[in-house]
Amino acid sequence: AGVFIGLPSPLSTNFVMSIASFLLCFHSIPQIQETFIKANRVGKDLNKRNSPVLPESVGVIVGAVYLVFMFCFIPFAFARHFSDPYHVNDFPHDKFSVFLAGLLSICCMILLGFTDDVFDLKWRYKLVLPTIASLPLLMVYYVGGMSTTIIPPFFRQYIGESMNIGYLYYLYMSMLAVFCTNAINIYAGVNGLEAGQSLVIGVGIAMNNVVQLNGDNHEQHLYSLYMMGPFIATTAALLYHNWFPASVFVGDTYCYFAGMTFAVVGILGTFSKTVLLFFIPQIANFLYSVPQLFRLIPCPRHRMPRINKETGLLEASKNVFLLSEIKAPGRVITRFILASGLARATSTPAGKDGDMQITMSNLTMINLCLDIFGPMQEDRLTAILLCLQVLGVALAFLIRYRLVFLFYEHN
Amino acid sequence: AGVFIGLPSPLSTNFVMSIASFLLCFHSIPQIQETFIKANRVGKDLNKRNSPVLPESVGVIVGAVYLVFMFCFIPFAFARHFSDPYHVNDFPHDKFSVFLAGLLSICCMILLGFTDDVFDLKWRYKLVLPTIASLPLLMVYYVGGMSTTIIPPFFRQYIGESMNIGYLYYLYMSMLAVFCTNAINIYAGVNGLEAGQSLVIGVGIAMNNVVQLNGDNHEQHLYSLYMMGPFIATTAALLYHNWFPASVFVGDTYCYFAGMTFAVVGILGTFSKTVLLFFIPQIANFLYSVPQLFRLIPCPRHRMPRINKETGLLEASKNVFLLSEIKAPGRVITRFILASGLARATSTPAGKDGDMQITMSNLTMINLCLDIFGPMQEDRLTAILLCLQVLGVALAFLIRYRLVFLFYEHN
Ligand SMILES: [Mg+2]
Ligand SMILES: [Mg+2]
Repeated sequence: AGVFIGLPSPLSTNFVMSIASFLLCFHSIPQIQETFIKANRVGKDLNKRNSPVLPESVGVIVGAVYLVFMFCFIPFAFARHFSDPYHVNDFPHDKFSVFLAGLLSICCMILLGFTDDVFDLKWRYKLVLPTIASLPLLMVYYVGGMSTTIIPPFFRQYIGESMNIGYLYYLYMSMLAVFCTNAINIYAGVNGLEAGQSLVIGVGIAMNNVVQLNGDNHEQHLYSLYMMGPFIATTAALLYHNWFPASVFVGDTYCYFAGMTFAVVGILGTFSKTVLLFFIPQIANFLYSVPQLFRLIPCPRHRMPRINKETGLLEASKNVFLLSEIKAPGRVITRFILASGLARATSTPAGKDGDMQITMSNLTMINLCLDIFGPMQEDRLTAILLCLQVLGVALAFLIRYRLVFLFYEHN
Repeated sequence: AGVFIGLPSPLSTNFVMSIASFLLCFHSIPQIQETFIKANRVGKDLNKRNSPVLPESVGVIVGAVYLVFMFCFIPFAFARHFSDPYHVNDFPHDKFSVFLAGLLSICCMILLGFTDDVFDLKWRYKLVLPTIASLPLLMVYYVGGMSTTIIPPFFRQYIGESMNIGYLYYLYMSMLAVFCTNAINIYAGVNGLEAGQSLVIGVGIAMNNVVQLNGDNHEQHLYSLYMMGPFIATTAALLYHNWFPASVFVGDTYCYFAGMTFAVVGILGTFSKTVLLFFIPQIANFLYSVPQLFRLIPCPRHRMPRINKETGLLEASKNVFLLSEIKAPGRVITRFILASGLARATSTPAGKDGDMQITMSNLTMINLCLDIFGPMQEDRLTAILLCLQVLGVALAFLIRYRLVFLFYEHN
């Protein structure tokens, strides 16, 4: 029984391994240049004057390093049971399967993301496959007897406590996986933004886990912390190489990997509502993008800002279309945007029949930021958007711990 | 409690789902042509007169369909616990984690295989990463208290029963994962061979599972059967499209996927020694390839047969090198091959100092088969090699159930 007295705590092992995963990512990313160019896994950085060609979908390396370190870490999380044969019999299979299911969903998303990078998948796959990949999570959640307050007390007074919305909650969790993976992927296109926002969210989640380590679900939060450690570390290494001027692109692979990791810790850590609070800027960006995402108004393939080659500064990318091209709902939205100034847009009479030519900034928070603060260099833009993300996390903590009575039963 | 009386048995659900996965693969593979060409995921079929360009690494579709169906199937395997809330409390987490760990390892290998297809990974990654991907399997095996006779009784009389070789057995299982994934990948290069051999091995494993359904480890064999169902089905669909003249290539992705699936069911089904018996042709091919794999004699990038464009028949590919180019162990092997006729080889005096130019068929079973039976059309070659595989499976059953006393404690 004394065998494990000398064992370091899992959390400190996790910390050391996180540092190791940072170093591995940090040193291996610059070395993949040649391999990626040979395989033609490259993309042009259009926001630079000379449009350099950079390795694309480097997220596959980050994801692989993450998985390798998590695989190596898991035995330490259960070291007491592995090192002492007498404890194998009361091995906590239910807790072990939390890690297995989480990593399974994450691994599926890395695979899906990399496939998306290579093949440019259709939207239906990006919605259906994450849903299926979240099935193991939902099963583990279901059989784990995990508890999350389902209906916020605030709403409960209206819809009644006894109403059985358990099924709806599973639907919510499954949609959370789809939302997280895609929300990061559409809030992208500027050096450092994908990795940067993920780093901020990841640190926010880890802070919340630390706060909750003394709470009711301390074990779930501890496990979440285990999973966030190598995630934050590998993401930081990626951000270093992806920061302006980027030497690599993260790819859809990274966005899917990051999004699913957040969904996994949220669901299995039983704080899936709190996770959504950390996505405030992504939710805003998604809602703002809805008219284009659902093709109510035209949506070009890339909506990221354009560089003005004379000034070297980024400007919002514009979308030019005729009012007659689009259907009635799109016309209503266009007129609303023109009237409200929700996006920079102008209209000029075009052709006959009172048709109008509309010039409108593409509907992303990134372009909105450029329209509000004016043209700026790429790193400044990323810095502003990341500050916004930090504010979002601060707001999330405020809601979670100050306005808590609206949403949660206990503190 | 009566809720689940009307439920179909998991095995029949699995059967129906396997058919569905066959149909999905069968119909979707022909439709990916354009996507793969656009993404430049293509390869030339050099064994045809006109070297047509075919989609490469279609295994990623097969693997994805397999995962989707397994994810959807798992709830049915535990339907009794899912459909009846009272049974959730005695949910068999240990059995559930068998599936999670198995699918996690398989998903990792699909990812690794696809990365290998895209980047052409170095050998060290092909050896190290499957080892790490097998860690979750070994953990599940360890904590599951699963039993496999470790030392064959035949050997036990020599090395003693009490010797603690438990650790060696874990090493064996981890190497099994590496061996299975790579052995199929190097026994390849002819239309239909990768999918064909996997189909034969898969059916062999499933037959063995059926035989053992009344045995001591019937549950493990049942689970293995669950995993083999969709595997056999999707592989059959792939074989149809990959059969001569192939319209798609399977890619490393498929080989890794298939190999890991076999390792997974072998380890978690507690018949990891029997699995190796099903790999007799692959073992023979591996051993025969050793001089080239370990670079004792030169090894070209591709060792597959060549087409004779005049006859349209395949012939063994040749390797031409000078005896002076290679080191002493390679020279010994070359002289042995020349003397024994183990491969078709000729030597002619070259240059000064008694140097010799060697012309030798590349050391694969495929080339050996062509040298023995003479040039033939590609489909006939595949058919012969698959017959050999069927004989191998028959031999495996013979050893397992007739010479059993050498290797196993009970029948
Ligand atoms: Mg894409
Ligand atoms: Mg390869």
